[in-house]
Amino acid sequence: MDANKLHLNDHISQQFNLELEDIRNKAMVMGGLVEKQVSDGLRALLEPNSELGEEVSTTDYRVNSLEVEIDEECTQILARRQPAASDLRLVVTIIKTVTDLERIGDEAEKIGRFAVSLATAQLRPGYYAELRHLGDHVKSMLHDALDAFARMDVDAAIATAAQDLKIDDEFESLSRLLITHMMEDPREVKNVLKVNWCARSLERIGDHAKNVCEYVIYMVKGKNVRHTSLDQMQELTD
Amino acid sequence: MDANKLHLNDHISQQFNLELEDIRNKAMVMGGLVEKQVSDGLRALLEPNSELGEEVSTTDYRVNSLEVEIDEECTQILARRQPAASDLRLVVTIIKTVTDLERIGDEAEKIGRFAVSLATAQLRPGYYAELRHLGDHVKSMLHDALDAFARMDVDAAIATAAQDLKIDDEFESLSRLLITHMMEDPREVKNVLKVNWCARSLERIGDHAKNVCEYVIYMVKGKNVRHTSLDQMQELTD
Repeated sequence: MDANKLHLNDHISQQFNLELEDIRNKAMVMGGLVEKQVSDGLRALLEPNSELGEEVSTTDYRVNSLEVEIDEECTQILARRQPAASDLRLVVTIIKTVTDLERIGDEAEKIGRFAVSLATAQLRPGYYAELRHLGDHVKSMLHDALDAFARMDVDAAIATAAQDLKIDDEFESLSRLLITHMMEDPREVKNVLKVNWCARSLERIGDHAKNVCEYVIYMVKGKNVRHTSLDQMQELTD
Repeated sequence: MDANKLHLNDHISQQFNLELEDIRNKAMVMGGLVEKQVSDGLRALLEPNSELGEEVSTTDYRVNSLEVEIDEECTQILARRQPAASDLRLVVTIIKTVTDLERIGDEAEKIGRFAVSLATAQLRPGYYAELRHLGDHVKSMLHDALDAFARMDVDAAIATAAQDLKIDDEFESLSRLLITHMMEDPREVKNVLKVNWCARSLERIGDHAKNVCEYVIYMVKGKNVRHTSLDQMQELTD
């Protein structure tokens, strides 16, 4: 469905084309970076590997500096090029997207820190299985959201946004399980709570990935779908 | 210190002036609305008052629709007026600010929902005192951040941003206390966890208020201070 993909305008100014390509590329580089952070954070937690956890929790500055850099380039394009229509939406979308990417980086950093403090804990093996399951789901959702962004694909964005509800359910059910275990074994409260915070961070990464999907829909369709149900989003593609 | 307050440009087009004033005013209305949501959510939790909690958790749509409305107006101004310099920074700042305000609304909604589910719980009286203390601090920080935004006051924004560290400390110490209590009385795990989530929501509201302060500094000084230490921020006012 071609109307559901965005084709960037060709500009008389070749330089303007390059500038738009540049902020898009940088946003994708930033996306790749946070994807790696999430993946490494999760691996550090599950192996467990406190060295890797340490690394994840201290390399967040690279994500942060990319956010500032992209943000400034976007504002400069707005000021100098005064983009209109889909170009304007692209710039606004990137300004919003990098904010969510930066917060995904923050959550990955938190998981990295918990990985360090849980590395020597004797957790029930079941926790690793549950976290791996939730984590794999979140990683694949994030990957698909970034892919929909890269291809500016509305259909993929809608399908990916729908994953968020499932991730919320998985988090809720894991959370209930953890509460039961805390009640059974109060000495474990501290560690189990850390597992719960990690699960919460993963769930939040799903929220941010959903935001990215909504921006993709806005960018291509020119319609703000924040606070819109999935059914209503679906109507956009008809 | 006059250089630390932003004076909007006078525009040849009176209509453009009105449009900029309008998005600023709407952002302030939205700020007032989320401030009330936070305040009501906290009151619902502490009194406790499940009816009020219910109200807070179901009126979030007003905040959401304001976000979409302001966002669209900002994009239209970018397209039609092609603002430059401080006008452009104002529009970009408002686009970012409403995202944070909307997330403050989300956290207030969560507190409202916990207020409902905790209304019949027999919590230790000490919890109310602790939550009230943290909540009052967060409310006053949010109020000051919105005030700095309304007055575009960099000095106030820096002083307010500094509150975030204290709020983080208060949250951490409350969290440690709650862990001890869960270990002492496992039957209480479920309710104590809810208290912990409420405290976490308050702490996050502090994070968002800090973001608003950073945008104020960016708007007035034209300098992005995200991921900058407070000391470095302070240098901006010298």
